[in-house]
Amino acid sequence: MLHTNGERLKASLLEMAKIGATPGGGVTRTALSDADRAGRDLFVSWLRAANMAVRVDDLGNIYGRIEGGDPRAAPVLMGSHLDSVPGGGRFDGVFGVLTALEVARTLRDQGITPRRPVEVVDWTNEEGARFSPGMVSSGAVAGRFSQEYVYGRADAEGLLFGEELARIGYKGDAANRPAAIHAYFEPHIEQGPVLEAENLPLGVVTGIVGLKWLNVTIDGVQQHAGPSPMRSRHDAMVASARIIAGLRDLALAYPDPAVATVGRIKATPGIVNQIPGRVEFSVDLRHWERAGHEEMAERAAALIKRIAAEEGVAAAVDAFWTCPPIAFPATMVDLIEGVVREQGVPYRRIVSGAGHDAQYIHEIAPTGMLFVRTIGGKSHCETEDILWADAQAAADVLLQAVLQAAGSFS
Amino acid sequence: MLHTNGERLKASLLEMAKIGATPGGGVTRTALSDADRAGRDLFVSWLRAANMAVRVDDLGNIYGRIEGGDPRAAPVLMGSHLDSVPGGGRFDGVFGVLTALEVARTLRDQGITPRRPVEVVDWTNEEGARFSPGMVSSGAVAGRFSQEYVYGRADAEGLLFGEELARIGYKGDAANRPAAIHAYFEPHIEQGPVLEAENLPLGVVTGIVGLKWLNVTIDGVQQHAGPSPMRSRHDAMVASARIIAGLRDLALAYPDPAVATVGRIKATPGIVNQIPGRVEFSVDLRHWERAGHEEMAERAAALIKRIAAEEGVAAAVDAFWTCPPIAFPATMVDLIEGVVREQGVPYRRIVSGAGHDAQYIHEIAPTGMLFVRTIGGKSHCETEDILWADAQAAADVLLQAVLQAAGSFS
Repeated sequence: MLHTNGERLKASLLEMAKIGATPGGGVTRTALSDADRAGRDLFVSWLRAANMAVRVDDLGNIYGRIEGGDPRAAPVLMGSHLDSVPGGGRFDGVFGVLTALEVARTLRDQGITPRRPVEVVDWTNEEGARFSPGMVSSGAVAGRFSQEYVYGRADAEGLLFGEELARIGYKGDAANRPAAIHAYFEPHIEQGPVLEAENLPLGVVTGIVGLKWLNVTIDGVQQHAGPSPMRSRHDAMVASARIIAGLRDLALAYPDPAVATVGRIKATPGIVNQIPGRVEFSVDLRHWERAGHEEMAERAAALIKRIAAEEGVAAAVDAFWTCPPIAFPATMVDLIEGVVREQGVPYRRIVSGAGHDAQYIHEIAPTGMLFVRTIGGKSHCETEDILWADAQAAADVLLQAVLQAAGSFS
Repeated sequence: MLHTNGERLKASLLEMAKIGATPGGGVTRTALSDADRAGRDLFVSWLRAANMAVRVDDLGNIYGRIEGGDPRAAPVLMGSHLDSVPGGGRFDGVFGVLTALEVARTLRDQGITPRRPVEVVDWTNEEGARFSPGMVSSGAVAGRFSQEYVYGRADAEGLLFGEELARIGYKGDAANRPAAIHAYFEPHIEQGPVLEAENLPLGVVTGIVGLKWLNVTIDGVQQHAGPSPMRSRHDAMVASARIIAGLRDLALAYPDPAVATVGRIKATPGIVNQIPGRVEFSVDLRHWERAGHEEMAERAAALIKRIAAEEGVAAAVDAFWTCPPIAFPATMVDLIEGVVREQGVPYRRIVSGAGHDAQYIHEIAPTGMLFVRTIGGKSHCETEDILWADAQAAADVLLQAVLQAAGSFS
């Protein structure tokens, strides 16, 4: 059976990890930074060395193409993103791009010309760490965002996406966006502990959890911490604490992968000896199924309302972002699962707990994802790691899946 | 019976409230600011108009003296502070200074010369809002802080106490500190809701709660909010929330005025879609009695330890400031209570939940405090308010108490 070159894949991942490398073993390669440019340059040089046609679209998405036996057929796309969060790891995103590159290289090595063109893609600014929101360029390709909107995204210093894209030399032509996509495959690290806990190298991704982001503002009564008896208080901090603990219990009542997280909190005035008059915090609610997601959000709102009433404080909930759960088409899930089984790699079906470019491309093309086990479930940190054997297993699966989707050239 | 002039007291309070007045009806008159200088200038002009000898010590504390029949006798001191927090109210501190001034004016009006000298005092930087810590000048007079330490306190812009004191023209002579104090009286607003709830104009203060300030640092595991199943988490935010709610319940188990407050909180990295790896928060624990205060702190530490263990996170507790509870001498409490009863003003004994200059002066002289009812218990805010009738009742009580302490000149 046809195999990819695990050593080459490993070498490429380690070579790319030098770009933006951090002292702690991770990378900082935020979108449209000098490090992103250097990573793109290296990636493009590899595409060219593999004799692939390279094009860049108006969003800076880079496509490397192996022409198909039928050049007019819609291509099979595979890839992910090269950008990272600040102080991120060596695998999030780049693993999918370089695994796809390894598949393309293997096709070249073997002189295989599939019926459909096969393209390797790097999507710009998946992380959203520098320019919010994330996945903005795959989203634009899917028709969710206009070019003007994307170009107008500003980073913390006020620098604009469009200007930074031009600055690093990757502002291409809108005509280079894919006209049609026959299928899209995105390999990615799991970024969670599930596969490792079950001793499984791979996960066949059936969908992506939906996501609701709330800003909760609790308004109580600001008072001096000393002369305010406990029973007289309307303490925004205590109310918030009870809500945060309650949201955890709420999420625990659902099976995995439903989760609730409070990541951001701010107390006003935020000094030791004042009962905070206002506390604001974020809530991130995720569920794999639309009705369950809505129910979860309703129960969260009821919880917030109940505790606010008990504490005599006002609660305002701003549900500022919702992204419904998606299910990848059974044809794509079955295709990937079939290959994994053929190759005898232990696996499970899994729902992605995080968003990926796949979730936008899913809207315009049959899409599937393959997860690789992540050591300690750690991601978005310098210690993000995988097993090299798992990486090759994923590349081998991707190779066969892409060949099936692209068809043979007879 | 001798009465103070309630209209004059009201007029003086309103006149002083113009200095540093805020649009919302409060004042910003932080220590050693231009507004503080203007407030001091007005105060000094009033002392001089009442034919009092004015002196300023090396800490900027201002003393206005009515000479006693026995000039060598240790004086009776009365007063509080003119500085405010930013966006503070019209009564915190200044009420005590101007009530004392009204008592002195009444003595002058009536031509009364008590046996002991009587002094009205304004202590510099009670609030600690600009230069931390608070009560630093009464503390220095009590021998707690050196002049060098006080002068070296820096504000947020790096300006030094000593330089700002000189700049506003109130750096006086260390020889002007009181050599000995026969008794110290400090009238103050309650800053809490207890007297109002019980429909009482006055409170006879028996002591001041002890105070412990803790910095709690919870270290969990920072993870992506999506692909991290609820049961796999070591969430510093959830652990902190449970601790904060638990501390409230702990304080509720004690009678008033024991309180626990979390005013400050910081999550790292503090973004929507990351489980915080670290959360730090402050805890303010107050209790009126030393053994109970220690027990409360021990129970808080045990609670933090237990919840940290349950959540699989590390907890570090830094008890960075302790101020033990104090009880004013029975002679002073009884003296004030006797006068209040004589005058037929409804009152209760009460423990102060907040620190005051009285707590340092207590270390070097018999000290007593008198509280006046505070509307809605609101303090350190623009809507801080009192009833004018209560103010005069407090001034009348202070007058008789001071006369008793100073003795008559025969």
